[in-house]
Amino acid sequence: MFIHRHKVQFYETDLMGIVHHSNYLRFFEGARVAWAHSKGLLDYQQPGTASHFAVLETQVRHVKPTFFGDDLQVEVQAKTDGNRLIFQYRLHGRKGEICALGQTVHVSLGPDLKLKRLSAEIKAVTEKETWTETWL
Amino acid sequence: MFIHRHKVQFYETDLMGIVHHSNYLRFFEGARVAWAHSKGLLDYQQPGTASHFAVLETQVRHVKPTFFGDDLQVEVQAKTDGNRLIFQYRLHGRKGEICALGQTVHVSLGPDLKLKRLSAEIKAVTEKETWTETWL
Amino acid sequence: MFIHRHKVQFYETDLMGIVHHSNYLRFFEGARVAWAHSKGLLDYQQPGTASHFAVLETQVRHVKPTFFGDDLQVEVQAKTDGNRLIFQYRLHGRKGEICALGQTVHVSLGPDLKLKRLSAEIKAVTEKETWTETWL
Amino acid sequence: MFIHRHKVQFYETDLMGIVHHSNYLRFFEGARVAWAHSKGLLDYQQPGTASHFAVLETQVRHVKPTFFGDDLQVEVQAKTDGNRLIFQYRLHGRKGEICALGQTVHVSLGPDLKLKRLSAEIKAVTEKETWTETWL
Repeated sequence: MFIHRHKVQFYETDLMGIVHHSNYLRFFEGARVAWAHSKGLLDYQQPGTASHFAVLETQVRHVKPTFFGDDLQVEVQAKTDGNRLIFQYRLHGRKGEICALGQTVHVSLGPDLKLKRLSAEIKAVTEKETWTETWL
Repeated sequence: MFIHRHKVQFYETDLMGIVHHSNYLRFFEGARVAWAHSKGLLDYQQPGTASHFAVLETQVRHVKPTFFGDDLQVEVQAKTDGNRLIFQYRLHGRKGEICALGQTVHVSLGPDLKLKRLSAEIKAVTEKETWTETWL
Repeated sequence: MFIHRHKVQFYETDLMGIVHHSNYLRFFEGARVAWAHSKGLLDYQQPGTASHFAVLETQVRHVKPTFFGDDLQVEVQAKTDGNRLIFQYRLHGRKGEICALGQTVHVSLGPDLKLKRLSAEIKAVTEKETWTETWL
Repeated sequence: MFIHRHKVQFYETDLMGIVHHSNYLRFFEGARVAWAHSKGLLDYQQPGTASHFAVLETQVRHVKPTFFGDDLQVEVQAKTDGNRLIFQYRLHGRKGEICALGQTVHVSLGPDLKLKRLSAEIKAVTEKETWTETWL
């Protein structure tokens, strides 16, 4: 299982003293980019290449808050469904407890923001991945 | 229908030239705070009051991209379900077209981050609201 | 004097309960874009036009904190100095008190990120502006 | 010399294709928190302790742009001046070149946002640090 680490920054908190919910989408983005790079998809998310992805849908379920200084761990799983690339995330807090679950759905876009088919490279990578249906 | 306006800022864009998806959760937050204030819920989201709300779930569906300088309009609808406060959002782009749909689910928390029952005030306000089931 | 208004959002606060200092640069950006639009510089900050500006220097002096829900007012003044475009800002809090002072220095860049001369249009606009030396 | 590393995230870019200038203040914050933790100042920036710091002044000089995916390195130096804690930063890009220089000035605040004297602990730590006057 691919795991991405993120140390919570002071500027990611809000006046409730916890991480602002919008930042979870940023943590997930960091996690899927790191996942892509770890799979050799080095141009992932660089415009002008085959592998830029637009975000179609996001979903986050918050289970527990996270705090300044926490060493978060984000587990990532990926699959394709037709021309859609689907990621799920399990975000663990400082004690390893699950703090958030998420899913993002993407399609491939050209630099002209027009839809493209998923590359063979992406399909080849995701086919080798394990997918657990029960995450979210 | 309550409508919140937001002018897209330069710092809300990313290198694809469009608004970064995480900002939609920020636009929705701005919209629900403005909605609450418009209903006389003036302490909405101030810690130490009855009406602080934690985010339990978020969901965003992206239909079209939005751009720097766009005058966005976010329609807001709200209802309660037991101790949950549910908002839905319809975000319109510069030509009035729907660009994104969203939902956020909240519970009331005290300053100690412990769950509280929804206040009578919130229930009274949402009971007067119209809710359309087919938004998302 | 040009004044830009900004209502402080919940997501702009941090765990000290005040607006995070990095957001002042965002408020200043919002203010100078609004200033440019008010002067008819409608393409201001759009890439691929003559009037994109890179940030060379920023400086912020914090006098008082600002808070969630505050209606901020940002006064803007602008001048040119050779090929540099210089803005200064005075940010007022909810009671009109000065909360922050700032300055940003810009140069004009083409879409290739190469330096360009300031356009005659920008120079014509700033020549008509009043500049007070004692702001920062 | 203390060095803090930061990998540039997609959400930190703007429509010019480069890192948005407001994020440099966030990189510097990440760097000084990491510096403080590395010196054993473990409560650094936690509210309710002696070592919370408000930002009085920030200054950034941009030399070259930075890009999505860059592995940045931020050198940090610190000193005190009376009750002020002063940090300077040198931010290096993917090839080691200097991309930005910065300075932030801080004072110690209690949870009531009232000024406090710098702790003996902070003074003891900064006295052992090397300071080079010529950074900015």
